[in-house]
Amino acid sequence: MSDLPNSQDVLDAARRLHGHVLRTPVLRNDALDELAGAKLWFKCENLQITGSFKIRGATNRLLQLPADARGKGVVAFSSGNHAQGVARAARNFQMPALIVMPSDAPAIKVEGVCGDGAEIRLYDRTSESREEIAAEETRKRDATLVPSFDDPYIIAGQGSAGVEFGQQMRDANTPLDHIICCAGGGGLITGLALGYREFDPDIKVWTAEPEEHDDWRRSLASGEIRENAPGTRSICDAILTPAPGDLTWALGRELLEGGCAGSDADIEEAMRLAFRHLKLVLEPGGAAALACALFDLPEAAKGKAVGVVLSGGNVDPAQYARIIGV
Amino acid sequence: MSDLPNSQDVLDAARRLHGHVLRTPVLRNDALDELAGAKLWFKCENLQITGSFKIRGATNRLLQLPADARGKGVVAFSSGNHAQGVARAARNFQMPALIVMPSDAPAIKVEGVCGDGAEIRLYDRTSESREEIAAEETRKRDATLVPSFDDPYIIAGQGSAGVEFGQQMRDANTPLDHIICCAGGGGLITGLALGYREFDPDIKVWTAEPEEHDDWRRSLASGEIRENAPGTRSICDAILTPAPGDLTWALGRELLEGGCAGSDADIEEAMRLAFRHLKLVLEPGGAAALACALFDLPEAAKGKAVGVVLSGGNVDPAQYARIIGV
Repeated sequence: MSDLPNSQDVLDAARRLHGHVLRTPVLRNDALDELAGAKLWFKCENLQITGSFKIRGATNRLLQLPADARGKGVVAFSSGNHAQGVARAARNFQMPALIVMPSDAPAIKVEGVCGDGAEIRLYDRTSESREEIAAEETRKRDATLVPSFDDPYIIAGQGSAGVEFGQQMRDANTPLDHIICCAGGGGLITGLALGYREFDPDIKVWTAEPEEHDDWRRSLASGEIRENAPGTRSICDAILTPAPGDLTWALGRELLEGGCAGSDADIEEAMRLAFRHLKLVLEPGGAAALACALFDLPEAAKGKAVGVVLSGGNVDPAQYARIIGV
Repeated sequence: MSDLPNSQDVLDAARRLHGHVLRTPVLRNDALDELAGAKLWFKCENLQITGSFKIRGATNRLLQLPADARGKGVVAFSSGNHAQGVARAARNFQMPALIVMPSDAPAIKVEGVCGDGAEIRLYDRTSESREEIAAEETRKRDATLVPSFDDPYIIAGQGSAGVEFGQQMRDANTPLDHIICCAGGGGLITGLALGYREFDPDIKVWTAEPEEHDDWRRSLASGEIRENAPGTRSICDAILTPAPGDLTWALGRELLEGGCAGSDADIEEAMRLAFRHLKLVLEPGGAAALACALFDLPEAAKGKAVGVVLSGGNVDPAQYARIIGV
């Protein structure tokens, strides 16, 4: 694979991942359609193994390792979902894994990683660099670092969700006009756009982000990478990256239509609506695309068939209870 | 259809309902398998339209009405899920509907019925008879009463979930040995057993109930209908009926293997585990089968492939927050 993955790489990844990941269901709901003013189709990656799409990219990456590298294991840094994806994929291939996680990561994500038998190295976000810790540990172990998004096999692996989505909509004979998908580093959305294009080259794909953390929206509007102001926060822990990645931006600038965003209040409301109408548990980052579909739908998508990627459901029970119980 | 539906009636219902109800997904999860000591396959009827399987039977029943009866509408009494199923099915067929609901029904269920445009008549559980109110309203309107379980078309309609489950497990080439399914009136479990038998005549089907409300378990053990002691309570509002119905018992005594039960504490724990591992919202009654699979699995099912019917997800947010947030 050259540095930038293409649609064929994503199709290959989808084939390779068959049996390793779930083919997640696509759902829809009349009440949410009415609220959005569009026909929404939900790709439920919160129902994926480990509760998010991240196992797709991690598995695809680990499948590339030569036999002699497997025994030495892998290292990853992540606040949660990538951590769990890598930990589970490593367990599935009987490989040792070390995950570098911030000490304030949601407990449910730390537990998930632990439960899969990975070693955890906690670090302090304010005083330590996770990149440095991970690099040092990778060197010491002669292990392989598994990046969270800016890697062609990670992007292609996440994109397998787009191939599935395309197959599912084709099988149901209900083509989509638009797709809204969360964008953190951008591995999922760029891979998904590549994958879905094999089924419909005219699909319009939009990023979903927290309002104060809209690096993709501003990058797409300006035509060059924009960073978030340092220190901006959001409840969407899963999708807070400083800026688009190099590879994901090179793909995204060509593949993506533009950006939408929702406030933390919109995202909490989307979580409540998913609870009520879909009976699905979404984490804040996993509800960003739904919030955008409901409260910041692009004009062009009004009244159209819109795919909405529900990307994850790993939320601490106490936080969920607080959001749902109001 | 004669009074007692047979497997062919259930197959017919499944064909008839195609396009009217969702083909709900089947999921599985390693962590829950480990806890149960069996391989569990979850049939997710909480993801069904209206958040429970009840739309299946209601739609199948309404499809039987002659043209002149349709305009006069339907009447039903129910604490919630049947109410929503009938209200939505009636709306889909542009029929008026009156639903008789207890004044202490979960607000989310009252709202669901309201949202579908049905008229609601609240009654006081302690001083009024819902049967009398419904009979009186049915007479006044010259409408059709839609019973909640003891009706051959209702049973056959609910059973369409069993036909789907059978097809899905056959397509995945993973036959089940056992199925655990909640039993209130018994419409779902008896219809489902009839439907699944078309795919495997040796399937063993077990009832799941709250511990203090185990009329089916005791009836199956003794060979004759046993009632619950008056005044027994449980958080499982959806599956509290005084005793098996006449038709459902006539079917169930032949089709069902025996009964399992879980305490309210077990059922709350099952709701928490579904939140954590499946990212699914279950109501108490909808989690009864999962609680039984995890905490009261029949000896014969240990280590086997066990289907678990997750029957509904209509739970008030405040109650859910209380249960999840501990």
